[in-house]
Amino acid sequence: MKSNFIVIEGLEGAGKTTAREVVVNTLRERGIEDILFTREPGGTPLAEKLRDLIKQGIEGEKLTDKAEVLMLYAARVQLVENVIKPALARGTWVVGDRHDLSSQAYQGGGRGIDSRLMTSLRDTVLGDFRPDLTLYLDLSPVIGLQRARARGELDRIEQESMAFFERTRQRYLSLAAADARIKTIDASQSLEAVTESIRQTLIAWLEQQDAQG
Amino acid sequence: MKSNFIVIEGLEGAGKTTAREVVVNTLRERGIEDILFTREPGGTPLAEKLRDLIKQGIEGEKLTDKAEVLMLYAARVQLVENVIKPALARGTWVVGDRHDLSSQAYQGGGRGIDSRLMTSLRDTVLGDFRPDLTLYLDLSPVIGLQRARARGELDRIEQESMAFFERTRQRYLSLAAADARIKTIDASQSLEAVTESIRQTLIAWLEQQDAQG
Repeated sequence: MKSNFIVIEGLEGAGKTTAREVVVNTLRERGIEDILFTREPGGTPLAEKLRDLIKQGIEGEKLTDKAEVLMLYAARVQLVENVIKPALARGTWVVGDRHDLSSQAYQGGGRGIDSRLMTSLRDTVLGDFRPDLTLYLDLSPVIGLQRARARGELDRIEQESMAFFERTRQRYLSLAAADARIKTIDASQSLEAVTESIRQTLIAWLEQQDAQG
Repeated sequence: MKSNFIVIEGLEGAGKTTAREVVVNTLRERGIEDILFTREPGGTPLAEKLRDLIKQGIEGEKLTDKAEVLMLYAARVQLVENVIKPALARGTWVVGDRHDLSSQAYQGGGRGIDSRLMTSLRDTVLGDFRPDLTLYLDLSPVIGLQRARARGELDRIEQESMAFFERTRQRYLSLAAADARIKTIDASQSLEAVTESIRQTLIAWLEQQDAQG
């Protein structure tokens, strides 16, 4: 099987870190050992600098919604061109913590950025590059943020209002419903049930890929 | 007269700094004292951080053309929203060393970035915000780069090939020809003649603005 780019998506506290372990363990069981992790925004020296600016902001200066989304795409194109595409080309699998769907959901849905800009950024910056499989961990933001808060201090984005996260979730759900390459996992279940859902979804997808040659 | 946003554009070595002095002196002669200078990329704490990343690059990482233009627009929207628009709103004139036309010429023309992306960035990021007057200092890059080199070390962009700067100049010329708000100044003339051209162009424009009320 060719190497693939698998992305884990969801709101803060949805369980992305646990999901990554399940994905990796499942891939390893099937003999896939050459796996690279990425997280967005970030993953290259420049992208990490942009991540810090986005996450922490600049003292005394308002970060506009548009500058935020432009910096997210700048970080993304550095990661895709300099890291993800070369990895896939040499046969390495890539498991990503967030990718383009996060921008579409948070910036497009949550912040309500002009859909022409969102579509144009995706299509002209990324071309036809898309994850082969996205696992979207769906969870009410009320529960997700409780979990995220329990982990410690909140960054600039995690301090948004509940309405922002509700809009973000709705955009995730509608984009997932429209794209067969995005699988929605009910992350409100017990840890065991979520783990089993991810595992079964991934196995079914891998077998389908195998069957397609 | 309402306050206006006047931009000085041109290749490296075209004489933008001198032009700025001529513009300011001409405005002052007409009693306009409240003038803010901007330079792009830059002009806010975040925009200056982005400027450093764009100008110097990151050791060991290729800055992609797309990330470059996205960072330029992120810096620009911060400057426009946080500095230029508030200044114009309180009656301050703004004189800018470069603005959007630089991206259209250098990234759109010089680097050949997808025109859909360039148009979409301009229209969706900036909306209908445009300089009231742009003075484009036209000069052959052969002469301009000799001048720029004589000033000292070249940055990442100044090290581009002559063909890159020729494409950039051609894009400047074609965009200037299509927009009445962009005035082309022949910067290959003697310093005295360039100064006089800028002065006369600005005075004619100011009188036209006055006549229009």
